[in-house]
Amino acid sequence: MGKPRPSAPTISEVAAAAGVGRATAARTLGGYGYVSAEMRDRVLAAADALGYRTNQLARSVSTGVSHTIGVVVADISNPFFGGVALGISEVASARGFDALVLSTAEHLEEEINAVNVLVDKRVDGIILSSAACAADSTAHLQLPNEQGIPLVLLDRLIPGLDLDAVVIDNRAAARHATTELIAAGHSRIGFIWGPPVPDRIEYRRELVEAAGRNLWSDGERLTGYLDALDDAAIPLDLDHIMLGEKTEMRAYEAVTRMLALDAAPTAFFCTETDALTGTLHALRDAGLAIPSQVSIVGFDDSSWAAVMNPPLTMVRQPMLELGRQAAELLLRRIDSGAGDAEPPMQRELETEFIERESVAPAPTHR
Amino acid sequence: MGKPRPSAPTISEVAAAAGVGRATAARTLGGYGYVSAEMRDRVLAAADALGYRTNQLARSVSTGVSHTIGVVVADISNPFFGGVALGISEVASARGFDALVLSTAEHLEEEINAVNVLVDKRVDGIILSSAACAADSTAHLQLPNEQGIPLVLLDRLIPGLDLDAVVIDNRAAARHATTELIAAGHSRIGFIWGPPVPDRIEYRRELVEAAGRNLWSDGERLTGYLDALDDAAIPLDLDHIMLGEKTEMRAYEAVTRMLALDAAPTAFFCTETDALTGTLHALRDAGLAIPSQVSIVGFDDSSWAAVMNPPLTMVRQPMLELGRQAAELLLRRIDSGAGDAEPPMQRELETEFIERESVAPAPTHR
Repeated sequence: MGKPRPSAPTISEVAAAAGVGRATAARTLGGYGYVSAEMRDRVLAAADALGYRTNQLARSVSTGVSHTIGVVVADISNPFFGGVALGISEVASARGFDALVLSTAEHLEEEINAVNVLVDKRVDGIILSSAACAADSTAHLQLPNEQGIPLVLLDRLIPGLDLDAVVIDNRAAARHATTELIAAGHSRIGFIWGPPVPDRIEYRRELVEAAGRNLWSDGERLTGYLDALDDAAIPLDLDHIMLGEKTEMRAYEAVTRMLALDAAPTAFFCTETDALTGTLHALRDAGLAIPSQVSIVGFDDSSWAAVMNPPLTMVRQPMLELGRQAAELLLRRIDSGAGDAEPPMQRELETEFIERESVAPAPTHR
Repeated sequence: MGKPRPSAPTISEVAAAAGVGRATAARTLGGYGYVSAEMRDRVLAAADALGYRTNQLARSVSTGVSHTIGVVVADISNPFFGGVALGISEVASARGFDALVLSTAEHLEEEINAVNVLVDKRVDGIILSSAACAADSTAHLQLPNEQGIPLVLLDRLIPGLDLDAVVIDNRAAARHATTELIAAGHSRIGFIWGPPVPDRIEYRRELVEAAGRNLWSDGERLTGYLDALDDAAIPLDLDHIMLGEKTEMRAYEAVTRMLALDAAPTAFFCTETDALTGTLHALRDAGLAIPSQVSIVGFDDSSWAAVMNPPLTMVRQPMLELGRQAAELLLRRIDSGAGDAEPPMQRELETEFIERESVAPAPTHR
């Protein structure tokens, strides 16, 4: 056997040798974007010394790739989407792509407009977290693919629409969190928040239908909660499901109302940050101690949750990883070009249950 | 006197009459972007009924305005910039403009690239929160104006650069917060965080110089802290100023080190969210109770701060308003076009000191 052939140097190796960031190396070697003269010289000298050959990047340039991707999120002020956007930017930037982010404030009409803007701006691909519910028109989600622009759904699937997607396993996450509360002895568990329907719901079937008409991710979390109750043969109490507008203030009101019930919840599972802070306000105003009088589990771990008194038990979503994997999948589709015959793929990432100190056995009376 | 001439109907009035959002009305009347056939009919009928004349918007279209603005932020995963971006999007969307957001991870090279990308994409204007420090090159901040693309600085001034800007009065905010701690009886007040210089600092002059070489907003907050000490004739203790990398972990380490001093701080003023959560971790691990043993004031109010135990006293920045005013200033420049001879203007918004329960008199011994 002869001497093993050394593997081709990567952009990362060139960047490290030049002492510059990967994005700078990628831009220099790809011949696009801004790089200062000094940085360019350092990168080219390092590439030369390592024997780097511009292959894939050069090919991208020659096929007219614009090196921008579009990102459409439902709410840019939500730290969840901020973390996701950061993960996307990291991966895009390391490949020399810029990410243009648009926020739709959960309005479908804004989302349709955002897709049109990005197609007009000739981005190379789109990552989109859709506000569309099952009943909405989704023609705008198929438009980019028809024009040769790959699109990856992020965080939210659209039932019945077969597109590339990276999401988390919301149902398993909610089932796990609820099961932990049941294991601690709770059977009356408030669910904040349920589907945003204005009316009172009388039957489980109605609840499931209402959830199915709304956001996929919210519906999955409710289904996971119901799974856990079913597993433990605990009957559903519809008074323990928050309905209506999804705001911190409405969560406060719903929890306050639930606490006044004869069969008041002894624990709360809060599926969003605003749902959680609204619940915490209500528990404080009711003078209830966590976890001795009431237990609580949140969703969307933040650095705040760990410094609360007591530190809060949370479901942590892999925000950065969600963004990174969506960007990797999109860049792979962009690299493959129009000849890409691989069918759409849907990746489901696991969440992590972070056990801290906000769950305790249910009080025997309150 | 004759009958007063009725004022011309606004887009908002047309939108209200049509029962649609302002963005939809603006797009319909401006003749750009996506509007469904049904919405378009409703808007046009309402415009007709009210006698609306498309003047300004029609003029924009005829002069080749693309109805997109670029937004460059230092860190999209920071909720502060998320709130700012939301404020910008609201105002832009109500005028029928789409906001494209790019994040630079506080890297100047990424910022220069982002400006180039936005100029390439022919946006109508740029709002930018710069990572540039006093010593950095700022040619890229002048480039858009030279090409007839207005640029508004947001949150961070660049000393010596005369550009439109909307910022907060960081110095007054920090002076106020520190003065409140002094009024409660504290004279040993930890400042988390100071300039990110790696070396130990021996003299006040060195500290001020180091701050002057770094981010304007950070330097202003330090200056406000020093103002308050000077006002009360309290000598500066350099051991109470955190230096080094600005991360939650480094804040934790700095506070832990300060608590071991003979003259340990009895209070902490934390100028960023990560500085605050790092400090809270350190206080918890040291077993110190807030506020009976140590007082704390944070910066950047979040919904979490109000549900902490105890609720935290905070400096609230007007994030949404910062974004809104920057967008309004930018749109005014875009409307005025190339003939705009008005000199650059800098607006400084006030912060709010939110008194809660994390400040108490200094303990007589600890």
